[in-house]
This record gives sequence, C-alpha cells and structure tokens, in this order.
Amino acid sequence: MRIVEVGPRDGLQNEPIPISTEEKVQFIQRLADAGVTEIEATSFVSPKWVPKLGDAADLWPALPVGPIYSALVPNRRGFETALNLGVMKIALFTAASDAFTQRNINRTVAESLIEFGEILSQRPAGMRVRGYVSTAFDCPFCGPVAPAQVRPVVESLLELGCDEISIGDTLGTANPSRTRALARELSDVPNLFWHFHDTYGRAVANVMAAMESGVGIGFDASAGGLGGCPYAPGATGNLATEDLVCLLESEGISIDNGIGSGIDQVRLALASVPILERLGRPVSAKSQAAILSQFR
Amino acid sequence: MRIVEVGPRDGLQNEPIPISTEEKVQFIQRLADAGVTEIEATSFVSPKWVPKLGDAADLWPALPVGPIYSALVPNRRGFETALNLGVMKIALFTAASDAFTQRNINRTVAESLIEFGEILSQRPAGMRVRGYVSTAFDCPFCGPVAPAQVRPVVESLLELGCDEISIGDTLGTANPSRTRALARELSDVPNLFWHFHDTYGRAVANVMAAMESGVGIGFDASAGGLGGCPYAPGATGNLATEDLVCLLESEGISIDNGIGSGIDQVRLALASVPILERLGRPVSAKSQAAILSQFR
Repeated sequence: MRIVEVGPRDGLQNEPIPISTEEKVQFIQRLADAGVTEIEATSFVSPKWVPKLGDAADLWPALPVGPIYSALVPNRRGFETALNLGVMKIALFTAASDAFTQRNINRTVAESLIEFGEILSQRPAGMRVRGYVSTAFDCPFCGPVAPAQVRPVVESLLELGCDEISIGDTLGTANPSRTRALARELSDVPNLFWHFHDTYGRAVANVMAAMESGVGIGFDASAGGLGGCPYAPGATGNLATEDLVCLLESEGISIDNGIGSGIDQVRLALASVPILERLGRPVSAKSQAAILSQFR
Repeated sequence: MRIVEVGPRDGLQNEPIPISTEEKVQFIQRLADAGVTEIEATSFVSPKWVPKLGDAADLWPALPVGPIYSALVPNRRGFETALNLGVMKIALFTAASDAFTQRNINRTVAESLIEFGEILSQRPAGMRVRGYVSTAFDCPFCGPVAPAQVRPVVESLLELGCDEISIGDTLGTANPSRTRALARELSDVPNLFWHFHDTYGRAVANVMAAMESGVGIGFDASAGGLGGCPYAPGATGNLATEDLVCLLESEGISIDNGIGSGIDQVRLALASVPILERLGRPVSAKSQAAILSQFR
C-alpha cells in the first residue's frame, strides 16, 4: 500500500497560527527522514483565500530532495505558478456534490471539470495529476452522497487524464459498510487512493474495509492527524499517518514507499511534534501518543 | 450488541487526581440518563492498592436506580464487602498469562482460578459473575499470547460458573486479523464481551472484525475513553463509548440496553466532560470531540 502524506498541505491550511516556511521545510525533512516518500507539500492558492499556504512559491524550491511532492492547484493561476516552478505532480480538487464545490470553489462539479480540462490540455510531458473527489460519502450542505454519484466524477477525472484519484470522506462519516459499497462501485478504477477523515474514530476501520475489498492502491494520511474538519470546529480531521502505518505494520501489509526501507514509526511519531507544539495542540493521534509515551 | 460501561471503574482507577464519591455518582447518573444500562461502577479493592476506588462501599449504596451495576472483586475480602452490600453482579479478574497475573494480583492464573472457585462456592442465588481475561493478545511481560492460550482460561471461568466473559486487549495491540483468529478459537463461548483498548487507534476496527466474525454479544467501553494504559503512560486506553455507539449507530446495529430506547449520543458525549475537566485531560475521544464541537 502507498501512503500520501497530506499534513503539510491539508493539515496546515486551516490552522489559525502561522507556521514559517522554514518550519514547514523542517517538518517535511523529518517526514522524509522517517521514510515518507509521497508528500502533498502545499497549494498554489491565493494567499487571500488560504493565507497559511501563501508561502507556496517560496516553500517549493526549498523542499528536501528525495520525496515525490505534489501541490494542490485550485485554478489556472495556480497552474501557472506550478508550471513556472517546474512542479511535476499537481492535484486538482473537485467533489461529488455541486453544493460542496459551489461553496468551496464557487462552481459546479461540471464547471470544475471543464476548467480541469483546460488546465490539463497544457500539462507538460511527465507531469502527474491527482484528482480529489471530496464529499464521496456525505456533503455538509446536501447530505448523503450515493456511490453512483461518485462514479461519474471519477470517470470524468480519468478521461481528462488524471493519473490517480483520491476519494475523500470529507466529514468522516464513512463506515466500513459504506466503504465496501463505494469500493464495489469503483472496483475497476486504477490508481485509487482513499482519503478518510477520523472525525468519528472510524478511519482505521474504513482502511481495513477498503483493503479487504481489494480496491485502491493506498491511503492519504496526515502526520499527527494534523488538520481539523472545517465543518466541525474542534473535531479531529485527517486519519493520522501514525495510526495508518501502525495498522499496516501490525497486519503485515507492506508499505510501498519506493525505497524498500519502510517507515520508521518512532521518527514518524516525532515528525509533527514541533508543529503540534507550535499550534498549541495536544498529541491526539493514538499511535503517536503511544509511541511518544515510551520516551517519557 | 450490549455495551458494558467501564469508565467509573477501569477509567478512574489509575488517575492521579481524586474524584469525590458525589462526582462519581453524578457521572454515573449522567451515563444512566444517556441510556447506558450496564455499568461497572467500582472495585472492592483495598484503598491501599487503588486509593481512587477506596470509596467503593460508600459509592455503592448511592448509585442511581436503573442500570445494572457490577463491581470488580479482586479477592475474598472484596467478595465479603460485595456480599454485605447486596451486590448482585461481580467481576473477577484474571489473565491469559501468568507473568501478568503474578505482577498484578501476585498469583498465577491457576492460583487465581482456585480462589475464584472458593469465592463462587459462596455466591448467593441470583448473583451474576463476569470473568475478565486480560492479556488475551499480548502480555507486557511475556509478549504475544496465542488464542490457544486464551481458550483454557475462558473454559475454566465458565466451568467455575461465570455468566459472562470479557476478553481483554490489555495493551491495545490487537488488530482485525488477530481478533478474527481469537474469535475463531472462542466461537462457541456464550456471553462473550470484547474489551478493546484504543492505544493504537484500532479498537473500532477490532470491534468491526469481532462483529463480522459473529462471536460475542457486546463490548466494554469507557465514556470519554477514560483510563490510560498503565504500561504506556501518556498513551490512551479504553475504547471510547462514544466511538463505539457512533459506529454501531452508523452501521445500523441496534444497541441492546434493555430499555429499547437506544443511547443518546449527545448526552453520552457530555457525560464524562466534568470528569475530564477535573482530571485536566483534553477530550480525546474522536466522536465525543465531534459531537461536542456542535455546541461551540
């Protein structure tokens, strides 16, 4: 299974306390040192909308050598920034519900796909593209989303040339049964990642359900569980990378990080500690707390 | 599925900050008001060993009417206290590894079973007995415990007259595969409960695995995830009742609390808040945090 670390982007984008570019670089360096090799580093978004990622153009050239990095590209302007910086992997963001994209990116799903087509028509050779499908289980604005609503969005993204798809459980309301149902609907989709939120403590159970379904090649996760759910302030957000790695290790499932060395769980548990301290957040990821407790 | 709430006993026994009898009664009242009907309220243990439960004899007569209560009875003296107080459900504590019982209760597993036999020969009519089997997956002192080591302890407890068995994942190191393996070994055991710790974030996944195995009639859990793991200071302990209830609700699995009304998730999330505040602990149970965030 592959792991895409989204902490530096998804984990920090909504935090109220600013993290310096230097701190981000050090965070990413610690992740790389732990054996994390796929990292979504930032977003080329307007600083007006996401001030905490406003340093993206400064951060990108400073990233440590080694990992494969991606950057979220919310629009054509962001794509131009990516082109100028020589970014070789971008991520595009849409959803399975119009209500969500309209409030988040001010356009319908169909309109977002049209823009993606325009962007992808200019992609340089070798640039890889990830497509996010948010609200694949529930939408905060329109309620439950059926697997049959997710499939056409995934198909469109593949037709537009996306190399991989990330299926987002935006509200953390997925459960094992629903994960299996969506996996059945998407069983023929290549290069599929699952992006579970741990809002209700079910992310690890959903990972198991996805693996048992045999659908998907990996999971998104965030070191330290960084990143809250903006639709439930105070609730926890992303599946913690520590819990994911610990599950995979425990179940004897090998982590494909391309370097054959696995992920060092102690280094991983330590990687986000300076960021958590900076944000004034307690360690809330279970495996991280358990591993760190060995040093107390 | 049945839920045995162990917060007042297992959750508070190792906490450094004292909780008054009155605060415990109010905590239990809030749990009862939420629809929790099976509660392990305390332990009739020497205040010398577990000072935080030293008020057991005062607490017991003050318990709110409604729920079925049990009390842990660590030895003959505790059993006499239970008899004097008219306790109608007791819990006995042993483990699947001698190394663990020797360090915890200063006797081998076999010796603990002999004492249980002596205690149970004096049980009054109508007294129900729960038998705990700790270290059913791993022992902090002797390492992995095979399912075949668990079975004879369970059989002995049943032969001695235990009405229900609680299988303890003491270190939180169980995973879905191991849960299924142990479930196969124990598939014919009646009235089996699973007691998972969430130390590595896998308790909910293990609950799913147990239910899919069809083995067991319920789960132990602790409101707010109260109770650390004494073998990993700083690590989290019990499966949070909030996460368990939220999973069961999400999966459409009915909770058998004997009163047909289900468990009120908001009241449940609020039940442990005064205790957590008193202990100076943050809300760390995922579903509890998510539900409480709705009031911020």
